[in-house]
Amino acid sequence: MIANANPYDELMEFQRDTEALGEVAGRLGWDQETMMPEGASDQRAVEHAAMSKVLHARMTDPQIADWLDRAKPADAVAAANLRHIRRNYDKTMKVPARLAAEIASTTSKAHRIWAGARRDEDVAAFLPILEKVVALRIEEAQALADGGDLYDALLDNYEPNASGGQIAAMFAALRPGLVELREAVLAAKAPMQLSGEFSEEVQLKLSQELALAFGYDLDHGRIDKAVHPFSSGSGLDVRITTRTSLTDPFNCLYSTIHEVGHAAYEQGINRDYLLTPLGRGVSMGVHESQSRIYENQIGRSRTFTGWLFGRMRDEFGDFGVPDAETFYRVVNRVNTGYIRTEADELQYNLHVMLRFDLERALIAGDLTVKDLEAAWNDRFKSDFGYAVDKPSNGILQDVHWSAGLFGYFPTYSLGNVYAGCLHDALRAAVPDLENDLAKGDTSRATGWLRANLQTHGGLYEPAETIEKAAGSAPSEGPLLAYLSAKFSDLYGL
Amino acid sequence: MIANANPYDELMEFQRDTEALGEVAGRLGWDQETMMPEGASDQRAVEHAAMSKVLHARMTDPQIADWLDRAKPADAVAAANLRHIRRNYDKTMKVPARLAAEIASTTSKAHRIWAGARRDEDVAAFLPILEKVVALRIEEAQALADGGDLYDALLDNYEPNASGGQIAAMFAALRPGLVELREAVLAAKAPMQLSGEFSEEVQLKLSQELALAFGYDLDHGRIDKAVHPFSSGSGLDVRITTRTSLTDPFNCLYSTIHEVGHAAYEQGINRDYLLTPLGRGVSMGVHESQSRIYENQIGRSRTFTGWLFGRMRDEFGDFGVPDAETFYRVVNRVNTGYIRTEADELQYNLHVMLRFDLERALIAGDLTVKDLEAAWNDRFKSDFGYAVDKPSNGILQDVHWSAGLFGYFPTYSLGNVYAGCLHDALRAAVPDLENDLAKGDTSRATGWLRANLQTHGGLYEPAETIEKAAGSAPSEGPLLAYLSAKFSDLYGL
Repeated sequence: MIANANPYDELMEFQRDTEALGEVAGRLGWDQETMMPEGASDQRAVEHAAMSKVLHARMTDPQIADWLDRAKPADAVAAANLRHIRRNYDKTMKVPARLAAEIASTTSKAHRIWAGARRDEDVAAFLPILEKVVALRIEEAQALADGGDLYDALLDNYEPNASGGQIAAMFAALRPGLVELREAVLAAKAPMQLSGEFSEEVQLKLSQELALAFGYDLDHGRIDKAVHPFSSGSGLDVRITTRTSLTDPFNCLYSTIHEVGHAAYEQGINRDYLLTPLGRGVSMGVHESQSRIYENQIGRSRTFTGWLFGRMRDEFGDFGVPDAETFYRVVNRVNTGYIRTEADELQYNLHVMLRFDLERALIAGDLTVKDLEAAWNDRFKSDFGYAVDKPSNGILQDVHWSAGLFGYFPTYSLGNVYAGCLHDALRAAVPDLENDLAKGDTSRATGWLRANLQTHGGLYEPAETIEKAAGSAPSEGPLLAYLSAKFSDLYGL
Repeated sequence: MIANANPYDELMEFQRDTEALGEVAGRLGWDQETMMPEGASDQRAVEHAAMSKVLHARMTDPQIADWLDRAKPADAVAAANLRHIRRNYDKTMKVPARLAAEIASTTSKAHRIWAGARRDEDVAAFLPILEKVVALRIEEAQALADGGDLYDALLDNYEPNASGGQIAAMFAALRPGLVELREAVLAAKAPMQLSGEFSEEVQLKLSQELALAFGYDLDHGRIDKAVHPFSSGSGLDVRITTRTSLTDPFNCLYSTIHEVGHAAYEQGINRDYLLTPLGRGVSMGVHESQSRIYENQIGRSRTFTGWLFGRMRDEFGDFGVPDAETFYRVVNRVNTGYIRTEADELQYNLHVMLRFDLERALIAGDLTVKDLEAAWNDRFKSDFGYAVDKPSNGILQDVHWSAGLFGYFPTYSLGNVYAGCLHDALRAAVPDLENDLAKGDTSRATGWLRANLQTHGGLYEPAETIEKAAGSAPSEGPLLAYLSAKFSDLYGL
């Protein structure tokens, strides 16, 4: 290190390597889901743990405090970098190493127990370790919160500067409308369902075509198959996965569009921010806004599905759907069901709100783990109108709580709310967008998102990022109006 | 860390994470050659450098000296672990960080310049940076050698405890016989050559079948395509690559068998040594002995090629080779040529010896970089009987010197010498091996190598490892006798 070098430059050089090591660790996760031979998992666990230790040691390096004390930001970008680094450093330092290690080992164990419990439909087997996970996260939240709200302290890991109270108010304004709309839709005549079999090879071919149509850059990414679709990596190497189902091509195609939304966000960030704290999507909620607007507001629109119908007819021949309008209805069909990840655009947020309210009560101490299943089942019956039939369709369906990810769930719906706001602004900015989408051309839509949102990376706070693009502070109104209009039209309400 | 814990256990826990991080860094290299999107290379360079810094910091951690001072080995395994760790620590500490960094940046630059020079047939463009690389490696050798031989100090990075003098004596005993045999073979009537085209998909299918036939464990490995075939990783995750050529299926099939030799060695090491210094192949020479005995003494034997002929007939139909005996001759055909990596079993070692003598003279200061091309061309003419036609067929053909890998080349031929010794011992231990090979069954051969050599990993020194399996100290005699017998028979000498 050069003596008397600029402390900001020294800090950023150190940070660049930390970011690079984070990318390496992330790619190790990608490899595990796509390429790793089955017998390698024991060794891989040691590799992951070793990388985590390296990253933790860097993130708690006392040099960082010294650099932060001395660094003077020269511009807004430097100020934003320092803000991110300071926040992460303060948060990491507040959690005792002993507690961080205990959380890591307990959630690792809890994940295994949860998988077995879900397989065996055995809630009782999971609750004792879940109690430990909740207790540890509460302890972590106490360390982080400085006397403030415990849930907010955890939420901040996924959606910086958000508050559980604000989200609760937003969700409270959204929920009655969604429940009402859901009831009306399910009382109306349902469109036909897709049937038959669809070559998985052709699904993958179409999937790649869709990825490119939505602006995914294969020179800085790749598409592989995995059990669960995901997007991984930042900067110049952003990879996605998809999956196929012989009878449900929409699973493959819309998973791909969703992951392309995440990946295009990462790929769309200003290249000047490469391997800096600004070079990654700013929050889970903003990330989800991109995946959801790609998937839903654009990908499931009448005009775009019209184009997709033609492409599917080209590839699969007559697959039993007579015309583009029927296809639009098939794609957007609202089905009853128990599973969040399989839920349609209309019902998805009801799933999320259920989890949000329950986990917020858990962390506040207003609900015990013992009472969690009953609370889940009551709420489900109330919002969906029918009872949970088995734990794997209820409390055991999601991985998140076993991994201790309290504060993560609401970001899914926050993303939908953000997508609603962005969609209004996009339509105002590109009033004749329908003409493009009818030709399968999303470039003006994705270009607008890139220029107005994606490029900023972590430059602004999450809500500020949305506001800059949408023109006003995020609210649930546009999403509710969009869903009401779309499904009222679809179901003739 | 537990106070007063056993220093050996503490050291090994630290070392386990270092080994795991080494595996992660290695897999990053695998990813780069197989999966990485093209546009990611700038980011990847930063990732690689960050991992190297992490590994270097661990390898020079002063805790290691303290643990080594206090650790008392309880058994031969512990003693071997300490021996490896001490040797690596001493070596790493002897090279100043400034010099290590300069070597890394200079060889990285030299590699790029070499690639351009080779493409442009422009030796002059490469020599100035090669001079720097040689000077830096000499400086490194001086730091490592403690007044001893400089070349030996570099050789030790690839073949611990070997000496350039001993290798030179071995090669001197080998070379006249090989030159003489080569001349006789090329004066005799050559067998037919393979012609036609061979489906690359079928090559890959056969290639996987061969990998499995040679005992490669796909539950702890995988096969991908890459520009250059290689084996990568240790322990539970050992991956190989292969390549295809439409007109030359042997390139794919024998590259695969070669890499399976490397990979099977790693996979065959005692699992108790996982993520310890004993859990990797002990040297480049011993590694190459496994790849070469798989590829040549077994894979290019008359009986095994007899089986392979049948499988190729099954898959490709009549491909113009009338019978198994002709096929054996086609597989082992000796061709004139300039390129080491394309050389046959007989001529390969002449290529290596040329490089060994030149690089040893360079490091000793007996040859200058300025005179290197003339020295190469003279020696080539003398050993091969015809002149080098262009630099890419001569001094610019191999990547090694641009990367500063002085001391690496001789391990290729050392591997062949070791393979000769092992083959004699294997044939004595399994006298009816031909019956197995005629059925494509290598299990007794690979099983013998696993039990007598591979399982030991780094427990013994390299030459000791060969001696334990072969029953006597390595010598060039068996290799020369094997090659003389094989090619005299093949060419009716």
